[in-house]
Amino acid sequence: MDAKRDTVIEALPCRESLGKPFLNSSKVYVVGSRPDIRVPMREISQGEFVSGSTKKSNQPICVYDTSGPYTDKSIKFDFQKGLDPFRLPWIEERCDTQVDAENRVSQFDKSVMPGKSTLFSFEGSRPPRRAKFCRNVTQMYYARRGTITPEMEFVAIRENQRRELLDASLGKQHPGESFGAAIPKVITPEFVRSEIARGRAIIPLNINHPEAEPMIIGRNFLVKINANIGNSALASSVMDEVVKMVWAIRWGADTVMDLSTGPNIHETREWILRNSPVPIGTVPLYQALEKVGGVAEDLTWEIFRDTLIEQAEQGVDYFTIHAGVRRSCVPLATKRMIGIVSRGGSIMAKWCHAHNQESFLYTHFEDICDIMKAYDISFSLGDGMRPGALHDANDEAQIAELKTLGELTQVAWRHDVQTMIEGPGHVPMQLIKENMDLQLKYCHEAPFYTLGPLVTDIAPGYDHITSAIGGAMIGWYGTAMLCYVTPKEHLGLPDKNDVKEGIVTFKIAAHAADLAKGHPGAQVRDNAMAKARFEFRWRDQFALGFDPDKSQHFHDATLPEEADKSSHYCSMCGPDFCAMRITRNLKEQVAAEEAGVSEERFEDKTSATAKVA
Amino acid sequence: MDAKRDTVIEALPCRESLGKPFLNSSKVYVVGSRPDIRVPMREISQGEFVSGSTKKSNQPICVYDTSGPYTDKSIKFDFQKGLDPFRLPWIEERCDTQVDAENRVSQFDKSVMPGKSTLFSFEGSRPPRRAKFCRNVTQMYYARRGTITPEMEFVAIRENQRRELLDASLGKQHPGESFGAAIPKVITPEFVRSEIARGRAIIPLNINHPEAEPMIIGRNFLVKINANIGNSALASSVMDEVVKMVWAIRWGADTVMDLSTGPNIHETREWILRNSPVPIGTVPLYQALEKVGGVAEDLTWEIFRDTLIEQAEQGVDYFTIHAGVRRSCVPLATKRMIGIVSRGGSIMAKWCHAHNQESFLYTHFEDICDIMKAYDISFSLGDGMRPGALHDANDEAQIAELKTLGELTQVAWRHDVQTMIEGPGHVPMQLIKENMDLQLKYCHEAPFYTLGPLVTDIAPGYDHITSAIGGAMIGWYGTAMLCYVTPKEHLGLPDKNDVKEGIVTFKIAAHAADLAKGHPGAQVRDNAMAKARFEFRWRDQFALGFDPDKSQHFHDATLPEEADKSSHYCSMCGPDFCAMRITRNLKEQVAAEEAGVSEERFEDKTSATAKVA
Repeated sequence: MDAKRDTVIEALPCRESLGKPFLNSSKVYVVGSRPDIRVPMREISQGEFVSGSTKKSNQPICVYDTSGPYTDKSIKFDFQKGLDPFRLPWIEERCDTQVDAENRVSQFDKSVMPGKSTLFSFEGSRPPRRAKFCRNVTQMYYARRGTITPEMEFVAIRENQRRELLDASLGKQHPGESFGAAIPKVITPEFVRSEIARGRAIIPLNINHPEAEPMIIGRNFLVKINANIGNSALASSVMDEVVKMVWAIRWGADTVMDLSTGPNIHETREWILRNSPVPIGTVPLYQALEKVGGVAEDLTWEIFRDTLIEQAEQGVDYFTIHAGVRRSCVPLATKRMIGIVSRGGSIMAKWCHAHNQESFLYTHFEDICDIMKAYDISFSLGDGMRPGALHDANDEAQIAELKTLGELTQVAWRHDVQTMIEGPGHVPMQLIKENMDLQLKYCHEAPFYTLGPLVTDIAPGYDHITSAIGGAMIGWYGTAMLCYVTPKEHLGLPDKNDVKEGIVTFKIAAHAADLAKGHPGAQVRDNAMAKARFEFRWRDQFALGFDPDKSQHFHDATLPEEADKSSHYCSMCGPDFCAMRITRNLKEQVAAEEAGVSEERFEDKTSATAKVA
Repeated sequence: MDAKRDTVIEALPCRESLGKPFLNSSKVYVVGSRPDIRVPMREISQGEFVSGSTKKSNQPICVYDTSGPYTDKSIKFDFQKGLDPFRLPWIEERCDTQVDAENRVSQFDKSVMPGKSTLFSFEGSRPPRRAKFCRNVTQMYYARRGTITPEMEFVAIRENQRRELLDASLGKQHPGESFGAAIPKVITPEFVRSEIARGRAIIPLNINHPEAEPMIIGRNFLVKINANIGNSALASSVMDEVVKMVWAIRWGADTVMDLSTGPNIHETREWILRNSPVPIGTVPLYQALEKVGGVAEDLTWEIFRDTLIEQAEQGVDYFTIHAGVRRSCVPLATKRMIGIVSRGGSIMAKWCHAHNQESFLYTHFEDICDIMKAYDISFSLGDGMRPGALHDANDEAQIAELKTLGELTQVAWRHDVQTMIEGPGHVPMQLIKENMDLQLKYCHEAPFYTLGPLVTDIAPGYDHITSAIGGAMIGWYGTAMLCYVTPKEHLGLPDKNDVKEGIVTFKIAAHAADLAKGHPGAQVRDNAMAKARFEFRWRDQFALGFDPDKSQHFHDATLPEEADKSSHYCSMCGPDFCAMRITRNLKEQVAAEEAGVSEERFEDKTSATAKVA
């Protein structure tokens, strides 16, 4: 067993492949009101602008950094030990939680975990923590009572991206159209608190996931993206998923959902959580179904409840709960062209039909709230009825469920449980705004979290693109987080390359939405890129882009020499046809003329005036 | 020399790689009012739906086909001979053109071509044809005089995609939002004529390109896409470009622009034209600049004029003419963050500044119209001032040029010359609609033809995606044709894979726009795909998608067995978690219950009513 385990561990990739710092970038930390609030950012240095004998320096650019300690050269990481639980003191000092190793609540932990090491066990898991009796430990609870937590201050600093240090010219941007969002010029900790208090934003952070760096999901903040990982019964292993998680956050995933349905589901999650600096979401129904051998009809509230607690104790930050799929949805779904395409939704529909009963997720919703608030887990209310084809978009089934989710949001808020709402799916462009507007209306501005939407059904192999089109638009209209879609959607389980392709594509969609909303500072990086282009600073262009590796690779494919990194053209147009080169020469010429021959010009003007006169 | 030439020719790829028919597809021809109007379409056959012992057939689906004779198994093609000039009789029977080999007009042809065969010469070029003295041979001229040409009938049949044969259920679609477009339920030849007559659509077809299959570009027709090919001084050869053209139309390019700037520019174009079933566009300024050794200041109207005629005689279908870049634009451009990024625009700005004169393209615009109408070449009025960064979007320079283009459109229309307008560029989402609306207003609804727009500057390596987001939106708002952008944009010259990636991405954008506008029949293929998904007809899913090769490859990467082509799951979720499988079982169960226990149900209903009462 030990020999095998060593093999498993040795298969873990080293820093070189996963933690390599980005081109021309370093990790910086902005310290808040207390020394242990250290907000990580990525600072991209910029080369000088050289023109003849003049040289001008360019300011470094700070960008939002989801990659965690992995890209910090000064930190040694060890997957077997997990990340530093730096948030533990913040949780402990609130004195509203307890660690009680003897009283693990979930049956799974009691029967399977203690002392039972398997090939894939993560050793050194912490004993679980939960709220003291009758206490509520959610960020929403604190916010509504006027408390600004260190978590709230952390995200405020993080959202501002240090743009107060920048030259005004880099911050210039077009006025946005925010469709009624209320984005302030500067994000203050108090603004964060107020948004959480009124339910317009969430900070998904389980008290059992103190390794995570706080982040915020809400319409008045930067649009976030989620990456799904997870093995299926047919493919992938535990370690593959840990690597995928680190890979996903490297490229920009703000949260990661572990959608594993295969073997070792508990262990996979443990490894991911202990090594994840971003919030982790799950769909607990998947594991519950595994526990009853895949037979949906055999599910019970008790098994589901125990699964929730098991995952709560591990530290999952948000749960997708398909409580909106009610018994009355079944006949609506069978009218559709493509029925139900949500796994969770189809399982619950089957259960309701088999038992001819209301969904236990719906009838036990307040019981679920009680669990959520004891760990500060956020709801991601699942859209079991999301359309799986354009044909079914915005139909009766989908809208009926959305209304139910709105009602459940108010129930959750009564318990001070943070809540977001999941959304579609396959939706043609002209119906996207309607969908967003209905969500805002029915769900009282709780953050919307959508999968795409995909704007056409006919591009398998390219659904990262069909969904980025819809994602950019719905993000602009008000969606707070976009769930990525990979090129493998509809076809198979994504591999590492697919994960990266999906993430970068969704970073584009989310950023395009920030720009269109007029989010303050959104255009800084674009402006810096434009300047680097005009100054032919190729390396800075690579570093400022979402994927320095790919852009450098593409550039170097035809112009590999070091000298080409400052050449005034690329292989697309060649030296004679570079428009920017011609313009720059023209600009310099005009400037020189204006400086050198100003007197002559003046005479010209005089004579011109004379002529007119 | 001959030995070398053989090597060149032998390097041409064979049918297998370029002309392989698509999966489950065959070429069909719909015959019009006369036997020589034969409109090609691709018919995708569909498998049966099998459930237990019942089998139901599925109708074949016809889709728009740009691939030309290359995908017709019955046609042997030979790049050295070129395609069949099937449109020649239509041109000849109008009796308004003449072939006069002795009177070639362009200096290039007189001095270089006759009898002078080079390594790359296309042998057997036809002598050029032009309008008889004082005749106008444009489709707009005919349309305005009430004539419906075979070309107009051809495009009407083509646009309708034979959807009159389909079951109503496949044609179901959501109402569109067309922002004032006027799309009829059925495209008639008379509608085509009327749209061309009022300048809202163009059929770009030079009388010297009789190999081309007519297609139409206009807001009330399907959104089209263009692919740019062409060598630069640094890379690519003549034959590479011919192969890229055939490759581009295979994947869906409706027109192709040859933007070559390197050596053998005339020969490359000849090979492309003689083998192209789609309209070919060029930017004649590029070749004119080559003729003066790359020195913009040395350009003259005479050299430019001669280049126009040279290319007109070869058969180029539309010319990008940057006549909107006027002397007054220069100071506006130097105010920008990134200046001028259009090659043609920068050349003309430099010329204007150097000579301190108005652009010869502007002052000679009516002379250019005289050339256009003698060959039926369409204007693509170039946007030399398109923004190259978000920062410069919708600025004074861009809008000033757009107004000039609107004035020039009216000049062109006075000559009955077909005209479209080129557009940006880099534009954040919230400014796209304004850009479209201004174009409609200033340019009197002449078709808009845009490059993207790219909605962010910071994704080099992924600019096919940044531009597809903007492209889908501007297509929805009213743009008639989208110019593709490849992943290599800003970094280097695209290769064959980049060309395909760019094209499929833009097919998605254009199709998403058709759906959103509510174009009749736009949702047919999506509905067929949804049905194939719900019936687990994997092979049909591959065939219905834009890229059957990639989707099959992705699917087979994890499930390669033949049996998996009808399995009721894929590797993404595995067998237990397939939502569609669960829903389908549920649907069948509900149907069986309704059939078997209808009486019992009825009793239930009665008692429910009783309770309410």
